[in-house]
Amino acid sequence: MNHKDKHPRISPINLDEDATINQIAKEFKNSGVFGAGRIAKAIDIFSEMLEKKATVFLGIAGALVPGGMKKIITDMIRNDMVHVIVSTGANVTHDIIEAFGGEHIRQVPYSSDSELREKSIDRIYDAFVADESFMKLEDNIQPIFTEIYENNKDSNNILAISTRQLMSLIGEKLDDPDSFVRAAYEKNVPIYVPAFGDSILGLQLWLFSQMKKIYIDDMGDLGEIQRSAWDSDLAGAFFLGGGVPKNYIFQSRLMSPKTFDYAIQITMDRVETGGLSGASLSEAISWGKVDQESRMTTVVSDVTIALPLIYSATLSRLKKSD
Amino acid sequence: MNHKDKHPRISPINLDEDATINQIAKEFKNSGVFGAGRIAKAIDIFSEMLEKKATVFLGIAGALVPGGMKKIITDMIRNDMVHVIVSTGANVTHDIIEAFGGEHIRQVPYSSDSELREKSIDRIYDAFVADESFMKLEDNIQPIFTEIYENNKDSNNILAISTRQLMSLIGEKLDDPDSFVRAAYEKNVPIYVPAFGDSILGLQLWLFSQMKKIYIDDMGDLGEIQRSAWDSDLAGAFFLGGGVPKNYIFQSRLMSPKTFDYAIQITMDRVETGGLSGASLSEAISWGKVDQESRMTTVVSDVTIALPLIYSATLSRLKKSD
Amino acid sequence: MNHKDKHPRISPINLDEDATINQIAKEFKNSGVFGAGRIAKAIDIFSEMLEKKATVFLGIAGALVPGGMKKIITDMIRNDMVHVIVSTGANVTHDIIEAFGGEHIRQVPYSSDSELREKSIDRIYDAFVADESFMKLEDNIQPIFTEIYENNKDSNNILAISTRQLMSLIGEKLDDPDSFVRAAYEKNVPIYVPAFGDSILGLQLWLFSQMKKIYIDDMGDLGEIQRSAWDSDLAGAFFLGGGVPKNYIFQSRLMSPKTFDYAIQITMDRVETGGLSGASLSEAISWGKVDQESRMTTVVSDVTIALPLIYSATLSRLKKSD
Amino acid sequence: MNHKDKHPRISPINLDEDATINQIAKEFKNSGVFGAGRIAKAIDIFSEMLEKKATVFLGIAGALVPGGMKKIITDMIRNDMVHVIVSTGANVTHDIIEAFGGEHIRQVPYSSDSELREKSIDRIYDAFVADESFMKLEDNIQPIFTEIYENNKDSNNILAISTRQLMSLIGEKLDDPDSFVRAAYEKNVPIYVPAFGDSILGLQLWLFSQMKKIYIDDMGDLGEIQRSAWDSDLAGAFFLGGGVPKNYIFQSRLMSPKTFDYAIQITMDRVETGGLSGASLSEAISWGKVDQESRMTTVVSDVTIALPLIYSATLSRLKKSD
Repeated sequence: MNHKDKHPRISPINLDEDATINQIAKEFKNSGVFGAGRIAKAIDIFSEMLEKKATVFLGIAGALVPGGMKKIITDMIRNDMVHVIVSTGANVTHDIIEAFGGEHIRQVPYSSDSELREKSIDRIYDAFVADESFMKLEDNIQPIFTEIYENNKDSNNILAISTRQLMSLIGEKLDDPDSFVRAAYEKNVPIYVPAFGDSILGLQLWLFSQMKKIYIDDMGDLGEIQRSAWDSDLAGAFFLGGGVPKNYIFQSRLMSPKTFDYAIQITMDRVETGGLSGASLSEAISWGKVDQESRMTTVVSDVTIALPLIYSATLSRLKKSD
Repeated sequence: MNHKDKHPRISPINLDEDATINQIAKEFKNSGVFGAGRIAKAIDIFSEMLEKKATVFLGIAGALVPGGMKKIITDMIRNDMVHVIVSTGANVTHDIIEAFGGEHIRQVPYSSDSELREKSIDRIYDAFVADESFMKLEDNIQPIFTEIYENNKDSNNILAISTRQLMSLIGEKLDDPDSFVRAAYEKNVPIYVPAFGDSILGLQLWLFSQMKKIYIDDMGDLGEIQRSAWDSDLAGAFFLGGGVPKNYIFQSRLMSPKTFDYAIQITMDRVETGGLSGASLSEAISWGKVDQESRMTTVVSDVTIALPLIYSATLSRLKKSD
Repeated sequence: MNHKDKHPRISPINLDEDATINQIAKEFKNSGVFGAGRIAKAIDIFSEMLEKKATVFLGIAGALVPGGMKKIITDMIRNDMVHVIVSTGANVTHDIIEAFGGEHIRQVPYSSDSELREKSIDRIYDAFVADESFMKLEDNIQPIFTEIYENNKDSNNILAISTRQLMSLIGEKLDDPDSFVRAAYEKNVPIYVPAFGDSILGLQLWLFSQMKKIYIDDMGDLGEIQRSAWDSDLAGAFFLGGGVPKNYIFQSRLMSPKTFDYAIQITMDRVETGGLSGASLSEAISWGKVDQESRMTTVVSDVTIALPLIYSATLSRLKKSD
Repeated sequence: MNHKDKHPRISPINLDEDATINQIAKEFKNSGVFGAGRIAKAIDIFSEMLEKKATVFLGIAGALVPGGMKKIITDMIRNDMVHVIVSTGANVTHDIIEAFGGEHIRQVPYSSDSELREKSIDRIYDAFVADESFMKLEDNIQPIFTEIYENNKDSNNILAISTRQLMSLIGEKLDDPDSFVRAAYEKNVPIYVPAFGDSILGLQLWLFSQMKKIYIDDMGDLGEIQRSAWDSDLAGAFFLGGGVPKNYIFQSRLMSPKTFDYAIQITMDRVETGGLSGASLSEAISWGKVDQESRMTTVVSDVTIALPLIYSATLSRLKKSD
């Protein structure tokens, strides 16, 4: 066998002290295998999604806002790199907390979690948030709920509202330009939160619902996202973590004749247990969520490492091709 | 230092060809470290939860029904080992599919996921389900939705129903004694499905909602599970996988003065990314979800291996102590 | 498509409080997917290896002796279930330490690793060993080295000895019937330790070598294990963890016309980074280490959970078929 | 509690399309948590190691050469960022294969590993190497072994050689400036290969040893690396993966009064199974391998992603401070 003409060599990654994001991306592509190769492929696929004007569905799971990913998500929205968002309740909660002046902190020394409890500091691995930040959420969100309720309730004094509408109306009230909930409102990017009740924001709404009758219109959300999926000529899925957002995005095109044309997932979950969070994208072909022509890759990495590289390199490629 | 009087030896695991579940549990306890030690500790904690009459909240995430865990969940319900269930939409969907005669299959040879697609077989790692099983779901669930709607709609022809109520009313209609949705109905164990829309069952309800007005009463679910948590003198959490069920259960006691007194999680997710699914139980102390007196353990294992051992050994201990 | 006649159903695992290892194995087999299915398949393959009289090569990596696996390895040797062993230096070190009266302990409370350091207790996750156990090793092994040296040195006062010989000569001196090094000596099962220097036992030999000239005959080991592999009509590999033992066993048949006919690995390592420890067994087909007719399975599990089940169930099947 | 003055905020990572490695490093540091935070900390620690003139011990495990890491390791050597190397046999084998004109390739389509076997292409996850590359190794290394043997054998025609010497003598013969074995020879950086026999290079030496008597002087290696460790005022460990190199480096300072002052590990292995590859660096405090004053971090990542970032950013910082 003479393979030399056929298969590219794995070119050793070659970086110097002035490396730019473009060079990192190029070197990862020329190496092309294992984790670095997957990041390069994700950059290629994300770039193609955007060049081909695909509708990009972004799934957000895991502690991304405490993990410092907020600004990138916001910039992706503002740079027209994302068109539909499905989020866990926690990520919108943390984003809104920061918009209200709460903060996530680090380098908090502690000898035990009990000590943190006494200090009213909550731990998210090596990130932290003080209870007072949650109090800021309560102080600020309740009046917003009241206003939304009064403006939108029906003649029976019932408010039925989809999470898409609710996130948009909340986003309108936020001042923080770095908030992705705000940016999504400004850019008219819908945010769906399928497990809205499963979050501190959800608990706040429950508190409010003790006074006023309120329903989350989950069926309305489902109809809307399916319509977005149906109406998209080309559709791309970009999953930051797995969980509910991954399945919710993938199922949005199940009832349409089309599949997702592109898919990227960044995850540390494993395939072998059968859970959807770690499931291979190839498996999704059997379900008709993607098909064999779809371009796909799984990056096995902490999102906080892989996403900044993929985002910045893709942006660079798009700007250069302007 | 003379440590011998103070610390127990790690006793090598000693099993023969007639080993019973009791012996396995005992040997794992006498070894007491790494994975085997964690399983032994989980058996101890689960046994104590039940002996002390704690309310047991079971979280169900991951492909547990395709993974063969259905009967164990059902038996846990029937043996009074579980009192509140929070499930992903997928697990109740798969349980109901089997109750309607659908089935999960294995040993399906395939050369590619595209080939499976052509054969209308969907893959869940090395488990499979034919599209016709989903058709059985559609054929059988739509009449049940109609009946539930007609019996429960309000004077404005709107049905607002919590997932707890919905699961109970569906469970009433199922014939299959092995279905955990049925068993929960019979034993009056509430099943909450916080991301109900994120499932095929949710899509079926959406189809139905195109004809009739229907709201999922997420706030009703939230109120109920918090009341269960508030009313429980002692409360134990048992998490099969992470995801929405883990957080939803943990947050149920956030607004109460009490924390969970026991917690067991079986997961393969990692702690280092900051995601809640893989978060340590110790971290939950800082949030006030558990406290330092709580008995807790994390078993890092595929649920399909660890749960059968933990369930069977705990049952054995309970029966012996009768 | 009518798949019913063709593919077996995933039968939900059904265990009661009197479950025996046989029932667990049977239920795991009837379920047949995810982790439980892999354990059942490992039992099948291990049983077939033994029924067909294959030579079984056992790879031992990870903290298996501190993890309580010593007795099972010993029993596998005594029950003719293992014929060649390749071990890390640590596992033979820990085995010999216990044979000399040292011990591994558990439930050692500590507030920090510094505190353990002050108490001269070394930590292996949640297992522990006191420095005095290592002193027992030194006290007992140096005289044995002297005796081995005197009995086996050549005319130039040089001792060149393979690890296989060394382990056998050490095994002869051990009293502990639970020691797998002793059992291997008794049953004439060779133990190879390819990275002998990478262990406390290796450091002890280095201390000895400061007085007397000693060479480890690595090439002698390589020749012998290849001869075992070449001479085996059927060969099976059983990997507890990955590391050096996995590759060393697999490469033993590289120069022979035959491949391994069976392979089982229990590991928590991942495939995606390209490292051999986590590599799929299928990949080994491309190298000619196994072939497509070989029976193989990977169990993604902590060894301390999976091995006891696989060992005990396989033993049970063998005894029943006597 | 007023935490604001005390704890830094997690600053969201902010990158644009012109991001340089310096900016990425700075943003990761300002975020400071989860994976990104760990990479930033690794850059800080590696920079400090070098500024303080610590002796840097680099452990190399996993398929790093096929994974495109060769040039970075070579550049680290040439830039005086590494002073002692401990490698698996596979990594030196793959490096030498490339130096002899063999190559690692990618994008090899295949339907099964059996098909690859027929084509004589070996797979390493998504990297590949043709059998002919191994033949190039054989053709080129055997004459080198002969020359080394003839030049270094003793009066009894026995060659006893440490892996450190052997790697240096092989490095001398390599033309490839990108080879890290060559670079190490040129810069007088010792390379230790404690499990030399566990590799194709080891098998080649075994072939040679069928004609000429040869011993690997493992004890000589052990003595030398301990002397390097003893002689180092400050010592830093940098582990790419775990395996034998990790322990071999850590144990090199066990017999000295000093511990390692710095430690960085990049790994995907888990802590919970007790294996050393995934063990926390904190645990090493209890063993006296590091102490509580040591600066340490574990980066949970594919090495091919994390190492390029850490290397390039550290180099940048060093060059800027010139």
